[in-house]
Amino acid sequence: MSLLFKHLRVHQIFGANTDVGKTLLTAALAKASAAKNNSVYYLKPVSTGPLQDADDKFVERHTNGSPGARLSTKCLFRYQEPVSPHLAARLAGDENIPSDQTFVNSIAAYIRQCASETSKSSHMFVETAGGIHSPTLSGTTQVDAYRPLFLPTVLIGDSKLGGISSTISAYESLLLRGYIIDGILLFRDEYYRNWEYLQEYFADRDVYVSTVEGPPEKLQDPARNFESTDQYYNRIIQGSTGTGDSINGIIEHLDTRHLQRIEELDSMPRRTLDSVWWPFVQHGLYNKEKDVMVIDSAYSDYFNIRTSADSQASLLQPQFDGSASWWTQTFGHTHPSLTLAAARAAGRYGHVMFPRATNLPALELAEYLVKEGPGKGWASRAFFSDDGTTGVEVALKMALRTFSCRQPTSLTRQEQKSLGVLGLKGSYHGDTMGAMDACEEAGVYTCEWHNARGYWLDPPTVSIQNGQPVITVPSSVSSSESQTEVVQAESLSWVYDVDARLASPLAEVYRDFIHRVLGNLPDNTKLATLLLEPIVMGAGGMIFVDPLFQRILVDVVRSEPYNLPVIFDEVFVGLHRIGVESTTSLLGVYPDVSVNAKILTGGLLPLAATLATEPVFQAFYSDKKADALLHGHSYTAHAIGCEVANETLRLIKGVVAGQNWNEARQRWVDVEDGSGAAKASESQVFSLWDPDFVDAVSRREKVHEVMTMGTVLAIRLADGNDAGYTSHSAEKVFQGLSLPSSNSENVLSAAPGGAPFGVHFRTLGNVAYFISSLDTSPDTLRSLEDKIWTQLQ
Amino acid sequence: MSLLFKHLRVHQIFGANTDVGKTLLTAALAKASAAKNNSVYYLKPVSTGPLQDADDKFVERHTNGSPGARLSTKCLFRYQEPVSPHLAARLAGDENIPSDQTFVNSIAAYIRQCASETSKSSHMFVETAGGIHSPTLSGTTQVDAYRPLFLPTVLIGDSKLGGISSTISAYESLLLRGYIIDGILLFRDEYYRNWEYLQEYFADRDVYVSTVEGPPEKLQDPARNFESTDQYYNRIIQGSTGTGDSINGIIEHLDTRHLQRIEELDSMPRRTLDSVWWPFVQHGLYNKEKDVMVIDSAYSDYFNIRTSADSQASLLQPQFDGSASWWTQTFGHTHPSLTLAAARAAGRYGHVMFPRATNLPALELAEYLVKEGPGKGWASRAFFSDDGTTGVEVALKMALRTFSCRQPTSLTRQEQKSLGVLGLKGSYHGDTMGAMDACEEAGVYTCEWHNARGYWLDPPTVSIQNGQPVITVPSSVSSSESQTEVVQAESLSWVYDVDARLASPLAEVYRDFIHRVLGNLPDNTKLATLLLEPIVMGAGGMIFVDPLFQRILVDVVRSEPYNLPVIFDEVFVGLHRIGVESTTSLLGVYPDVSVNAKILTGGLLPLAATLATEPVFQAFYSDKKADALLHGHSYTAHAIGCEVANETLRLIKGVVAGQNWNEARQRWVDVEDGSGAAKASESQVFSLWDPDFVDAVSRREKVHEVMTMGTVLAIRLADGNDAGYTSHSAEKVFQGLSLPSSNSENVLSAAPGGAPFGVHFRTLGNVAYFISSLDTSPDTLRSLEDKIWTQLQ
Repeated sequence: MSLLFKHLRVHQIFGANTDVGKTLLTAALAKASAAKNNSVYYLKPVSTGPLQDADDKFVERHTNGSPGARLSTKCLFRYQEPVSPHLAARLAGDENIPSDQTFVNSIAAYIRQCASETSKSSHMFVETAGGIHSPTLSGTTQVDAYRPLFLPTVLIGDSKLGGISSTISAYESLLLRGYIIDGILLFRDEYYRNWEYLQEYFADRDVYVSTVEGPPEKLQDPARNFESTDQYYNRIIQGSTGTGDSINGIIEHLDTRHLQRIEELDSMPRRTLDSVWWPFVQHGLYNKEKDVMVIDSAYSDYFNIRTSADSQASLLQPQFDGSASWWTQTFGHTHPSLTLAAARAAGRYGHVMFPRATNLPALELAEYLVKEGPGKGWASRAFFSDDGTTGVEVALKMALRTFSCRQPTSLTRQEQKSLGVLGLKGSYHGDTMGAMDACEEAGVYTCEWHNARGYWLDPPTVSIQNGQPVITVPSSVSSSESQTEVVQAESLSWVYDVDARLASPLAEVYRDFIHRVLGNLPDNTKLATLLLEPIVMGAGGMIFVDPLFQRILVDVVRSEPYNLPVIFDEVFVGLHRIGVESTTSLLGVYPDVSVNAKILTGGLLPLAATLATEPVFQAFYSDKKADALLHGHSYTAHAIGCEVANETLRLIKGVVAGQNWNEARQRWVDVEDGSGAAKASESQVFSLWDPDFVDAVSRREKVHEVMTMGTVLAIRLADGNDAGYTSHSAEKVFQGLSLPSSNSENVLSAAPGGAPFGVHFRTLGNVAYFISSLDTSPDTLRSLEDKIWTQLQ
Repeated sequence: MSLLFKHLRVHQIFGANTDVGKTLLTAALAKASAAKNNSVYYLKPVSTGPLQDADDKFVERHTNGSPGARLSTKCLFRYQEPVSPHLAARLAGDENIPSDQTFVNSIAAYIRQCASETSKSSHMFVETAGGIHSPTLSGTTQVDAYRPLFLPTVLIGDSKLGGISSTISAYESLLLRGYIIDGILLFRDEYYRNWEYLQEYFADRDVYVSTVEGPPEKLQDPARNFESTDQYYNRIIQGSTGTGDSINGIIEHLDTRHLQRIEELDSMPRRTLDSVWWPFVQHGLYNKEKDVMVIDSAYSDYFNIRTSADSQASLLQPQFDGSASWWTQTFGHTHPSLTLAAARAAGRYGHVMFPRATNLPALELAEYLVKEGPGKGWASRAFFSDDGTTGVEVALKMALRTFSCRQPTSLTRQEQKSLGVLGLKGSYHGDTMGAMDACEEAGVYTCEWHNARGYWLDPPTVSIQNGQPVITVPSSVSSSESQTEVVQAESLSWVYDVDARLASPLAEVYRDFIHRVLGNLPDNTKLATLLLEPIVMGAGGMIFVDPLFQRILVDVVRSEPYNLPVIFDEVFVGLHRIGVESTTSLLGVYPDVSVNAKILTGGLLPLAATLATEPVFQAFYSDKKADALLHGHSYTAHAIGCEVANETLRLIKGVVAGQNWNEARQRWVDVEDGSGAAKASESQVFSLWDPDFVDAVSRREKVHEVMTMGTVLAIRLADGNDAGYTSHSAEKVFQGLSLPSSNSENVLSAAPGGAPFGVHFRTLGNVAYFISSLDTSPDTLRSLEDKIWTQLQ
């Protein structure tokens, strides 16, 4: 991950193209840095071509004997054939071509080593090979392969014919990966005059462009050629030619940028405390600079956060995003495919009006959701809104109308207003007033206007306690009615085989309970819809509800005399967050209305979809405008969100059919089966978290129970006295996680770049939960398990 | 704008770099097309270099005598110097360098001419110059300059060393502009093997890559060289070399893509009607394919929409986006700076967790809004949410708590729930339940749970009737109390000089009325906040409220005994939609809480900000979590939205200080002043719409009144009987606007490309409104005025 040192200023040198003078100018930068009494490090991670022509050798020759020089050059991977690195490695018959992770770890290790061996002011230049998108050893293009290091960049522009184009394109490809571009440097070719154009172009874009005299003609005689080059260096370093900037000036600019970046990072906590009002945060409890996590950038599952490191360590360190940024991350942060999807929709449409109109990204998304995705088999329509809570508001409007239309006589306005929602205690559906009113007032998620409309049942729950899957039946539900019953379950897969359990005695207990409650509702309660977070109630405390209970609840409310439409709020659980695409496959029933958000856009930006059956749609269909669903947001079905969603859904298919998921499924089957003969299936309940780890955690004394499915791991601590949302008990137990640690001193961590990493996590009272992306690597997961385990000792 | 013909397939040829074989391969495409019995058009819009070496001459020579050929070549602009076009034009001393609009119009005119002169199957290739980002004549780079035409693209890849990089970068720059890339074509260089890498790379991205044998060596003897090239063409067109694809195969692929695109466009209305649930639309009224506007792409202020054109006309035509896509568009659609802002935030952060964290885009936006933007002078905090309605819900929670904290004793839950909002009749604040409950139930914006909580006053309004600015005072407000009073105003600037009017007799009438109403509220009404759409109530019918009334209302409710916090919902009016950045400058008071959205993100994607004073923030500040503002969305302060907002706010500064705005301001000053001596000021009330046009419209018989400010023009028709939201009267009067028309047969329209355009517009009952972007060109505005005028004849 990103490396940033106070004393060691590192820049990556990218070229707009091959043969633009990258090495020549990098050598000039190195010479000029050295002359200013800096230690200078030149790193060429990959060199192709004959050794004597290698860039690091060139830099070495031309910087030797520089005044004040303390200069090191280094090449990590070297191949003979002067072709693209990916090809050179293959032509050399290399059987150990480094993976991207090894590649990046090697570079990061070298940078950390250099930073530790000196405390004086130092500059490092990391020179890439060819153009920015030239493939590196693994075949990944450089601009992607180097991205985990997130080094500030100097782009060497192209001064030849066509060079305006290649320079701007290269700049845009860098921007698409979020690189900080500290400057563009190019030769001042007086015929094509690209520099003139580019200076104006980039001035508008606040990018520094610097130019120097073009290189001298190459002379046949090596000694004379060397001398002529050396004279050239003297001219451009001092800027004595009067045509363009001096390399000294550029070095100063890069120094300034480096200082500004550090000052900016240092200023951000105070500034944030002064101007920002955070969501869901009591500012009175977090009002010190140290309480502010400064996220400088992110990559994969990790934030790069600012630390108050000792003087020679990196000011930035990786922090695992343990809540998947509020349950949104799907393929980790900054996946280039999602960036490009956003960009191409912005470039083709921007946002375009949706009512009575259509555009391809929105249409394709609606069709996928309804016909192939979570709506397959039941939904006929997709309605777009902006986030989970607006998606739920839409769902409520749909359900209330549908129920109203089913009544024999029209409801009065007063009757309409008093319609209620049936739900479970612990539900959460969002923070707008309608979504809040669909939940109890009992919890902490309340406000002045919150007016709970409905009735909420105690849910039986599923968990693993001391290695044993159990169902906990609250006293209100259980037949004994006097105390909570803990029922041992055969296995998790047995628990989620709902159809098989429908005839069980517990099913009868559930049915009796539900009928009893519905038959004895308070007088003023008129239920109009059942609204569920199926399988897991997230914000309520990662409560895994017994699926049998939810199934029977759906079956009962759908039957006479209730006839309630059913809403599944799948904002959190949907789209493979808990393994399956939709909870309908676990519960064995379809809803009338469902809501998706969060993963829908791959963790990039807000969008929600509310799906509905044809009868629900028909409840609004007439020839009167006033009957329509008069709901809409300015950016309804914004093209960027829809295109990113389409790309996300496409990529998800590959992940859930991929090796990591299959291996995880098989691990869980093996544990439950024991014989090793059973084969995992796609519909099966499993987790990306290791079953042995989960089992062991569930047996720790501090732990009351554990539950896991898909990417979600929830650990409820054994502190019955202090269990509310406002409890800080889980935060206390796991607080050590936020500090970076390696599993072992000498082993590189699973974070890109291999630095020790901390874990950012969120708690819900006495529950700590950890949520990975769908494609978090097994390495990272195992490493997290070790860290969590350590905290439980 | 986009041109798409059934019979004429047009492709634009872009090069990944200069010297990649663009002309050689385009000639091959032309020859192969001709051999397949198509009419073939080759267009080189700009050629630089000596005539005999010009690309069109080369293509002409090599296609002459092609079997079955009916081939035309054309060059529109030619310069001698073999450098970048922008430089060549300057070196040639050309004093009439075409603007981007002229450039694009010339190309579009040629394409339309070709389409009209033949009805048989035809192919056209438009060959660009140099690399994709090479500047064209005006200096704009080609990828931006050609974008209005939105022609499907063939990218000629780079087969040389470094060519993988330049090809991928070029592809990404094309994607950033939304181009449809129908294929990548490159030479099969067997040493660098770029084709091998690129085929795999682009297969993952669903882009067709085709390769052909590299070109023959250039021979000295012209005749032999010609012959050798000709033989080469024969080999690659047939694909007889066995190394790579045939040009014939590529031609077939392009044909297939062309057909697919048309079929897709044709299928979209039906598919939309089958799967999409539109916002705010009664599907029962719009259930035919013709009711669906298919937006193929957008550019500037125009959609490209599908038409059922006659056989030789373009299937796509420009349609002015007359509602600024629900009041969001700021610089028109697909502004590259906003796309790049979105891309760089996606590339650096993706979305990152916001509570107790910070990131630069969010922090900078918060600081700008609070310290320099609409919150300047009063706000201390910015709270982010996802759209206008959630921003209002947040504002309500803030205001209700602030009011509660001001009470001498704690309110009971029941008292909290019954707190009410003071507002104006005709208010609209969004579609989530809390925002709805802050409005009357009287209107059409209602639903089952809608439970209006508060009290709403009849507002006096401002308009122009028969050329006369007037204030219409409803009977409930007026001192006579028996009938609506229409008061003549000196001028619009007099109306909006609120401070000067505070001592007027009308001010006394307003004060009396407000005190009277507040003193006689229904028993169960306990007001807690004043919530206003300042200056204009948009969705309620573009009602321009007398600013004096709103000012006095604020003053009164803030004073004893009421002490209400005040919310300004500036979602629609804010950020220069009506000229001023914030309505506070017109009303002369600051709110306690305000909401911005829509323009905030430049018309690209959803984001809202709720600003609050320090006392409001302090009402939630304690050491108890439960006291916090427990509101938040998954994507709160998403980096893309914040970065796009920062870029938008930066760009706005230039627009509002620019020539068009200054000229518009001066026009309005001149009309009101008469003497021509007055100078316009930035705080002044004005409109981008022409004062003479507005005056004339206000005098039409069909028109009851007109009002305009900034980008907004609202025309209320004279049909008192049928004025509700469900009325279709305005839609009927202006329905002719949706059909494309030119102002004159022989004049190019103001739409890019010059094609006749229609106007997409939205109505609110008997009000038709037209909203431009902040930077809509005067040409387009004048043209719209002509079209609107025509409809009123």
